[in-house]
Amino acid sequence: MKGFAPVPFTQVEITGEFWKERLETVLTKTVPSQYEQLVKNGIVESLELKQPAPPLRIPHNHHDFTTQIFWDSDIGKWIEVAGNALSHRRDKTIEDKVDRIVDLMARGQAPDGYMNFWYLGREPQNRWTNLRDNHELYCAGHMLEGAIAYFQATGKRKCLDCMLRYIDHIAGVFGPEPGQKRGYCGHQEIEIALIKLYRLLGDRKHLDLAAYFINQRGAQPHYFDEEARARSEDPKDFWAKTYEYNQSHKPVREQTKVVGHAVRAMYMYTAMADLAVLLNDNGLRKTCETLWKDVIATKMYLTAGLGPSARNEGFTADYDLPNDTAYAETCASVALIFWAQRMLHFDLDNTYADVLERSLFNGTLAGLSRDGCHYFYENPLESDGHHHRWAWHHCPCCTMNVSRLVASIGSYLFSQSDTGIALHLYGGATLDTTLKGKPLQVIEESNYPWSGEIKVRLKTETPIKFDLMLRIPDWANGARVKINGKPVGGRKPLTHGYIKLARTWSNGDVVNLSLPMPAERTYAHPAVKADVGRAALKRGPLVYCIEQIDNPTMPISDYRLYRDSKLTVAHRKDLFSGVSTITTYGGRISTDDWGNVLYRSKPPKVLQSKITAIPYYLWSNREKGPMTVWIPEE
Amino acid sequence: MKGFAPVPFTQVEITGEFWKERLETVLTKTVPSQYEQLVKNGIVESLELKQPAPPLRIPHNHHDFTTQIFWDSDIGKWIEVAGNALSHRRDKTIEDKVDRIVDLMARGQAPDGYMNFWYLGREPQNRWTNLRDNHELYCAGHMLEGAIAYFQATGKRKCLDCMLRYIDHIAGVFGPEPGQKRGYCGHQEIEIALIKLYRLLGDRKHLDLAAYFINQRGAQPHYFDEEARARSEDPKDFWAKTYEYNQSHKPVREQTKVVGHAVRAMYMYTAMADLAVLLNDNGLRKTCETLWKDVIATKMYLTAGLGPSARNEGFTADYDLPNDTAYAETCASVALIFWAQRMLHFDLDNTYADVLERSLFNGTLAGLSRDGCHYFYENPLESDGHHHRWAWHHCPCCTMNVSRLVASIGSYLFSQSDTGIALHLYGGATLDTTLKGKPLQVIEESNYPWSGEIKVRLKTETPIKFDLMLRIPDWANGARVKINGKPVGGRKPLTHGYIKLARTWSNGDVVNLSLPMPAERTYAHPAVKADVGRAALKRGPLVYCIEQIDNPTMPISDYRLYRDSKLTVAHRKDLFSGVSTITTYGGRISTDDWGNVLYRSKPPKVLQSKITAIPYYLWSNREKGPMTVWIPEE
Repeated sequence: MKGFAPVPFTQVEITGEFWKERLETVLTKTVPSQYEQLVKNGIVESLELKQPAPPLRIPHNHHDFTTQIFWDSDIGKWIEVAGNALSHRRDKTIEDKVDRIVDLMARGQAPDGYMNFWYLGREPQNRWTNLRDNHELYCAGHMLEGAIAYFQATGKRKCLDCMLRYIDHIAGVFGPEPGQKRGYCGHQEIEIALIKLYRLLGDRKHLDLAAYFINQRGAQPHYFDEEARARSEDPKDFWAKTYEYNQSHKPVREQTKVVGHAVRAMYMYTAMADLAVLLNDNGLRKTCETLWKDVIATKMYLTAGLGPSARNEGFTADYDLPNDTAYAETCASVALIFWAQRMLHFDLDNTYADVLERSLFNGTLAGLSRDGCHYFYENPLESDGHHHRWAWHHCPCCTMNVSRLVASIGSYLFSQSDTGIALHLYGGATLDTTLKGKPLQVIEESNYPWSGEIKVRLKTETPIKFDLMLRIPDWANGARVKINGKPVGGRKPLTHGYIKLARTWSNGDVVNLSLPMPAERTYAHPAVKADVGRAALKRGPLVYCIEQIDNPTMPISDYRLYRDSKLTVAHRKDLFSGVSTITTYGGRISTDDWGNVLYRSKPPKVLQSKITAIPYYLWSNREKGPMTVWIPEE
Repeated sequence: MKGFAPVPFTQVEITGEFWKERLETVLTKTVPSQYEQLVKNGIVESLELKQPAPPLRIPHNHHDFTTQIFWDSDIGKWIEVAGNALSHRRDKTIEDKVDRIVDLMARGQAPDGYMNFWYLGREPQNRWTNLRDNHELYCAGHMLEGAIAYFQATGKRKCLDCMLRYIDHIAGVFGPEPGQKRGYCGHQEIEIALIKLYRLLGDRKHLDLAAYFINQRGAQPHYFDEEARARSEDPKDFWAKTYEYNQSHKPVREQTKVVGHAVRAMYMYTAMADLAVLLNDNGLRKTCETLWKDVIATKMYLTAGLGPSARNEGFTADYDLPNDTAYAETCASVALIFWAQRMLHFDLDNTYADVLERSLFNGTLAGLSRDGCHYFYENPLESDGHHHRWAWHHCPCCTMNVSRLVASIGSYLFSQSDTGIALHLYGGATLDTTLKGKPLQVIEESNYPWSGEIKVRLKTETPIKFDLMLRIPDWANGARVKINGKPVGGRKPLTHGYIKLARTWSNGDVVNLSLPMPAERTYAHPAVKADVGRAALKRGPLVYCIEQIDNPTMPISDYRLYRDSKLTVAHRKDLFSGVSTITTYGGRISTDDWGNVLYRSKPPKVLQSKITAIPYYLWSNREKGPMTVWIPEE
């Protein structure tokens, strides 16, 4: 089904409990606490361009650079979180803080439009001399995304105008013309922002610049080589050793394997998929599809975490998915959602929506605590109790990535084409739109993800003929649909995982969708060594885990699942303001008869034991303790 | 049973096929090929002290030192291998080579007795300035062990005399007297050599120097700190970060956990146990026993490999025993044999002999190829096919460690006290000794380790009353003993795992020992995460593994053991000149129905499959391929 585009979240009201609670937390807790951190950590102050520049807050790391160079991106992302949150409900206190930051930005911007505060404040002579490492365009991209979000939420143009001047400057510096630099950023991001800007203003030059950065990437002679030599460095001294790290090892259209830094990869693929749609570029689409298949079939954790290795914050070998050392950066799961959403709109296909949802409810949501003020950077699938949420990080990218995503949740629920409305995610939301020139309200009500019973009501002044497309997740076996109480006959064939209800819809029409949501075991491909002999529990879109607090016998690694024991779902209102748990009778290894030896000829003794699992995204919200997703089977 | 001491291998003739073949291989293949490598790699040439010194053959590594500084130890160890091998059969060609090396040593030795060829050749001004890193005393220790072995085998004194001059020099430099250095080597070894020298010559000063090095270790102010400052270095810049690396983090008597570099630890404990016996030092014995329990109960691979981590070539956390990345250096398993032998002689106890045997037949023997010219440095318990034997290594310590051990196998079979003879290992050997002043031959015949049927015949001119102690390994359930064909009545109680046959023995008396040797599964303590849900196969002292070549379906990791299927032992004469294999019917994961997904709700399909296992020590002797010891259970 071509022609569908996401409906912006400004047209969507979130009404369901699940997401309303998260949105409210972001607005009232996350945004203010993040601002406090930006002040406390000197990030806001950096916009003041004090001279001489204050001492570094973050020292150079072992790769000889400081993550302080990306502070502008934290500013930009925080403005985006605020903008997204303000779209749901304006808040003067927050806006005053944003406006103060925007004033500092405008004051600091160079007369030629340049506006990177690291370089302005510390090494103005070195602009655009190290795109490989120093995130200059990446920072511009995040500031641009922030400016767009804040403009959309408030109508205030000052930040956007600053950024338009900066983007004009950038467009002058980079490009194929004589005297322009043939460069692109070591950390992809600005491409996504430029495409958003193009969507906002319709100015083709912004789309062209995004396309230039993507198409230039990996061209020979290699820009990062030449740039290193211009700095009198040997390109071979690049700490990451390979340009796979930033996906510039070859031109993007020649890439067939997902490699390198996970967030960079996902941001790049997102922009590529956007460009493929906007420029009707079939080659780029095929590349995206090849890369998608690679990551989904060989490199994605069950939680949609990406990138097992801390060394490169990214990918290693196929099927290398260790649980306890999983890096699985929150940002990478967020970025997978961006990419999946673009892929979904090639041609509605639940393959993409299923992954989007898997990432949303697991790898992404895990990154933000219940209280909205604590975060995960890494999201391992197993912990011995030493991995906890923190209130801030010297590299706080994930804090604002997960919260900007949560605050924009409305963008992921509905899509619209000239002839139809598609529902991807469920959970209680109202879409206000105009279809075929006629006002239409689509009111979706459900207690999703706790329940698979979904009700869709239509409000329209006059009947409208259109296709109502409902996503049937691959995990839902035996989904049933009724229209106005009447079952839709037989097994209606799905179109790429969507059920298509084509008719003339009248005011008050009701569609009921039942997605069976039993608790289930899941198994990993046998090539995933870390999961051999193990199963995980899931229900609907949620991956479950066992935490020590609910399963008190130490250590958590001694619990065993029986292959055939019954899995029981209970909705517990007393836990986390309502959560469905999975319980089962399984085994628990006892070592009390083991003795003081390492090896013996008798297998370990197994006692019967109750096992209680909670959704993975909720772990580490109570007392600290061990956790595991993949439980050995006995 | 106190008072037992090992019988030197010069009194033992190896007659059984298993060890005779290994001894002959070492003498005819290993010793000559190692000499060729020593020449080819410039190690022999380094003794010529050419000036200016030739360029380094081995560059500085990332810790900023070159392993070339330990070349003297390779010379010393090769002389020891040669000496041990020559004890079994003299060989003029080999002796000529040793004699040539000894001439070079004597020529190079400084007038004051100093004799480290790295320092003599490259930085004579820097003697004894970096004991922490530069292995100067370690090299002296290996050269001394070589000199002793060569003297014992041939009666030639020249090498020993050189070393006695060098040891006198060392004894002048180090010690508690004014003007002496309070130091000790970063890599323990010389302590063992000095104790051997004491046992050879009976000169108390050598024992005292060994005791000084052990007792001084870890004293404050810390010698390595002071030495680093004297070099104008910050002690904190020590690459290993902690003195646990070389077990000098605290005085040895305060150590309760096995830490750091595995070989250094084992060499130190060996010397400590020696000193505990020789000095009747009960405190040191208790420390040894505490450390022994720690390593055996929490840190030893099933193969008796030690040290999971390549980073420190050593120990990490309790129960951290990953299989595929196991470092388990051959030298560490060899050194565990040294230590176990010393512990065994506190008070005969099969706990120690069992570990000695486990290391001998598994972690140690694996280090030397069938052809005697290829080696393992690391001994992982699982390989994806990329780990192979090599003909030489820039750090060739393991090559000569495993071969000097094999060539001295006779030392580990028998012990003797004033009132008895003890048999620890079996396999066919004749002991020629004198007991209570009377000549006695103990002739042990067996096809061990393939068979547990052992026959011991005594030859004596006159009857002798003594205790014949036979070790009953812990793995042998239901061992039976006959004397002259008559069962020894009832279940004779064991003394620390030894059966004590006390009587007056006459010429021609025969003892038959039957050690049941079924193939068995073995399980690891559940805290060993890498082995959860897995079993290994073993028989008698041998740990088995499955290699791809015998189990052709790729990958080897898809094979599964059933918990209750029959294990069949067959002795195959066509394989490796005779080997007992274990076969069983188990499972094999099939992914042909899996599809192009990473996760699914159905467990993997399991097909029935024959599984053939060979002894671990024999792996990687045919074509290259994957291997695993711990097989998942289905």
